[in-house]
Amino acid sequence: MSEMKVLFHVNETEAWTKSLGNITNFLKDQPQGKVEVVANGPSVTAFTGSCQANGGGGCGCSLQKGDLLEQMGRLSNEGVVFAACRNSLKIYDIDEKTLPSFVKVVPAGITEIAAKQSEGYAYIKP
Amino acid sequence: MSEMKVLFHVNETEAWTKSLGNITNFLKDQPQGKVEVVANGPSVTAFTGSCQANGGGGCGCSLQKGDLLEQMGRLSNEGVVFAACRNSLKIYDIDEKTLPSFVKVVPAGITEIAAKQSEGYAYIKP
Amino acid sequence: MSEMKVLFHVNETEAWTKSLGNITNFLKDQPQGKVEVVANGPSVTAFTGSCQANGGGGCGCSLQKGDLLEQMGRLSNEGVVFAACRNSLKIYDIDEKTLPSFVKVVPAGITEIAAKQSEGYAYIKP
Repeated sequence: MSEMKVLFHVNETEAWTKSLGNITNFLKDQPQGKVEVVANGPSVTAFTGSCQANGGGGCGCSLQKGDLLEQMGRLSNEGVVFAACRNSLKIYDIDEKTLPSFVKVVPAGITEIAAKQSEGYAYIKP
Repeated sequence: MSEMKVLFHVNETEAWTKSLGNITNFLKDQPQGKVEVVANGPSVTAFTGSCQANGGGGCGCSLQKGDLLEQMGRLSNEGVVFAACRNSLKIYDIDEKTLPSFVKVVPAGITEIAAKQSEGYAYIKP
Repeated sequence: MSEMKVLFHVNETEAWTKSLGNITNFLKDQPQGKVEVVANGPSVTAFTGSCQANGGGGCGCSLQKGDLLEQMGRLSNEGVVFAACRNSLKIYDIDEKTLPSFVKVVPAGITEIAAKQSEGYAYIKP
């Protein structure tokens, strides 16, 4: 079998922890696997928790959000792509310029998910 | 890329609002896209909220349900197909004849979802 | 159309009842259909509820869990494959040797789900 390609759809904030755990376990099992995460809905607010995102230094960002972003950053270094839906960023009033550098903004999350499936990515909704 | 085809699976009443929002945003981004929604489980009860469905005139239907049906009707006019699982309609004691005219009844929701995926529809679970 | 192949992803304990109902209805509609269920996360704890799994005799297993396992056993007899993620079994401290004989353990649930989709299985998240 050629390399596996998997698309994770995250649309709830509560789904991040299990999603990142799923991805970590998948990459241990399939180190050559390709992973993209598409976040839409309230889940995009998780991208704003870092001190970096908030300008750094003494911010009151929650430990939990910081932990998620740290995990995302590590997975990004392993090649995982994190995409955020622009429509959702607007709804949650998130300035794209404040996002961590590893986040790719896409015009519409659903379009991205459909495009990836047509490229042979398996769909997973954690 | 040819036209995108997307199948939305809605099996909870609470998922309607975000699903219809996702579809609206997708069609803004991909006006030629094809969309089908398959509803099974309790989500099918949302099809019964309109005055039209209840015979019209002075019905006590909730505003929220009426809003959902109005949105569905608009999306139906843009070509979105709404399919309801017959098994689920029976469980929730819904008479098919009372459904809005834009709802297509399918014998089994899961079969419809699988058939659409084999026709190249991307699967989305909002 | 050739036989339909459907993969059910169950990652919450609460999703078992509707999942088994969906599968039952699907197989009534498509008796030649092939079904695999991949369980990961807390959903794997449902495999431990039977008296059989607990060594039998006077166990305090809940009726509900016993009912689920009985339904799974019946569906397994009809050809439905039940796969449990080994990572999740470890997290929930479940000894593989105590699992019902119809449960197949897979190294990583996400890999199994992706592999099945690449074999033409439709993905369903109940």
